[in-house]
Amino acid sequence: MLVYLEHFAVAVGAISGPLAAGGKRVDLFGVIALALVSAVGGGTVRDLLLNVRPFWLERSEFILNGSLAAVVVFFLARRWHPPRWLLEIADAFGLALFTVIGAAKALQLGVGGVNAVVMGVVTGVAGGIFRDLLIGEIPLVFRKEIYLYATAAFCGVVLFVALESLAPGENLNRLAGMGLCLSLRLAAIRWKIALPVYGGEDDGPRRP
Amino acid sequence: MLVYLEHFAVAVGAISGPLAAGGKRVDLFGVIALALVSAVGGGTVRDLLLNVRPFWLERSEFILNGSLAAVVVFFLARRWHPPRWLLEIADAFGLALFTVIGAAKALQLGVGGVNAVVMGVVTGVAGGIFRDLLIGEIPLVFRKEIYLYATAAFCGVVLFVALESLAPGENLNRLAGMGLCLSLRLAAIRWKIALPVYGGEDDGPRRP
Amino acid sequence: MLVYLEHFAVAVGAISGPLAAGGKRVDLFGVIALALVSAVGGGTVRDLLLNVRPFWLERSEFILNGSLAAVVVFFLARRWHPPRWLLEIADAFGLALFTVIGAAKALQLGVGGVNAVVMGVVTGVAGGIFRDLLIGEIPLVFRKEIYLYATAAFCGVVLFVALESLAPGENLNRLAGMGLCLSLRLAAIRWKIALPVYGGEDDGPRRP
Repeated sequence: MLVYLEHFAVAVGAISGPLAAGGKRVDLFGVIALALVSAVGGGTVRDLLLNVRPFWLERSEFILNGSLAAVVVFFLARRWHPPRWLLEIADAFGLALFTVIGAAKALQLGVGGVNAVVMGVVTGVAGGIFRDLLIGEIPLVFRKEIYLYATAAFCGVVLFVALESLAPGENLNRLAGMGLCLSLRLAAIRWKIALPVYGGEDDGPRRP
Repeated sequence: MLVYLEHFAVAVGAISGPLAAGGKRVDLFGVIALALVSAVGGGTVRDLLLNVRPFWLERSEFILNGSLAAVVVFFLARRWHPPRWLLEIADAFGLALFTVIGAAKALQLGVGGVNAVVMGVVTGVAGGIFRDLLIGEIPLVFRKEIYLYATAAFCGVVLFVALESLAPGENLNRLAGMGLCLSLRLAAIRWKIALPVYGGEDDGPRRP
Repeated sequence: MLVYLEHFAVAVGAISGPLAAGGKRVDLFGVIALALVSAVGGGTVRDLLLNVRPFWLERSEFILNGSLAAVVVFFLARRWHPPRWLLEIADAFGLALFTVIGAAKALQLGVGGVNAVVMGVVTGVAGGIFRDLLIGEIPLVFRKEIYLYATAAFCGVVLFVALESLAPGENLNRLAGMGLCLSLRLAAIRWKIALPVYGGEDDGPRRP
């Protein structure tokens, strides 16, 4: 069951690669590369930090799945533009899933609670950050315009880690963490909830 | 023999650092840093993913070699501009070499065929991607204008991995893979062959 | 004592995150993320290359410390702009500390002298490079305008590594390396000393 969810999350992450590349004159290889970076980038950073081999390296299905999703979207998107809400829901689902799985793996490998939260958020958002860096944009996750994104991941993973410390290994913990992350993210999109922004036109000195 | 080839590839990779920095107001240290990132970046990512120490960390020659090449080019390029075709051939050779060596090391460390292909391509192109990120440009490898670059690496490494599964350890496998990569890359430059591009002026929604 | 110094360096690194984000419309989460990347990014790269778990992963204090510093600066900087010289001295101190600690850890884990120098410089400057990439700027460390930055780190760490080869484990070695780095950096700021720059308006061909 979990493996299916992971594959679903990889496919969703992969879709965001080609869509972000729109209008950037990126070729088919670039689209696949962006898709794979978006899809497995977060989990790769998590596994590097945990000093284990990346999850996709032991089997070939993840790379094949992500590449296939990218190729399909590459050709499909020339004719059909998926509605924005569909992408946003799928992406929110992927965020929730990656974040909680990331924290769970960190806990499993002996990382403490605070750092497991960090690892969960990193797993959830790093793929999108790499994608945005590669296409030359300030990572979306940092900008007010996308509304609570990392913050939704943060709240969900804090709930998950707190529940794990009370009842370790309970399946409901994952569901609760993912549910909170997903609801916060969707609510933030729906009602345009955002965190305060640092700095307007003029805000303090640039550091040397 | 292989070590000489590797050093040649490191020196070639290092040369591309200073040349990419032209017109960016980067200082001498920046030039050396860019050179080293270009030269050993791909192999470093490969080794991090394989969960072994980077190849350059066990001995000092690679860093010295890359730094020296950067310093020479830094001072030389003020007077003499190397012809473009010379750089392109040297770079194509480095791409072929790094890609096939990358896949070979991955296979050696127990990675499956599909992922070995990924590791080969990553080894071949990651150094240049880091270099371009550091100077604030969309990585060249993703753009149509450079013609089959990663794709040439991909075809070469697929051939190499396929041959390895038929006749493991055969020296000709490496030569065949490198030869295919090199020929495709040079042919693509010569006849301006490129992959289809995703998106023109207006191509679909940006993902949230 | 060393742990206090490390925490001081993490806090100083964290401060530079929010300050660099000024005027970029980054939200509170983004500020904390930038702070943590600046504070622990260099040490994380060093530890990944050495193939050990990042130093902040075994305990939670570093993440809490860096996050707290970021939040304080986030709210404080709306009212009070710290004088530039204060930031520059604190930052120079952090650079000296991170660089020498980085090289010391590399030597301890069996890395040779030349590569220990590389590891020291990387530890000292990588956090700031990641920070600048994430806010979409060419890393400051590469630009002439900041005056001997990585070069100061380089000289300090060369002195430290040289002394270590003469009298291994001597505490004075660290002090000497840090002192040289700190003095060079402050002198460079005071008298605007910089390395020669590669390339002006027109400097040679872009590599393919």
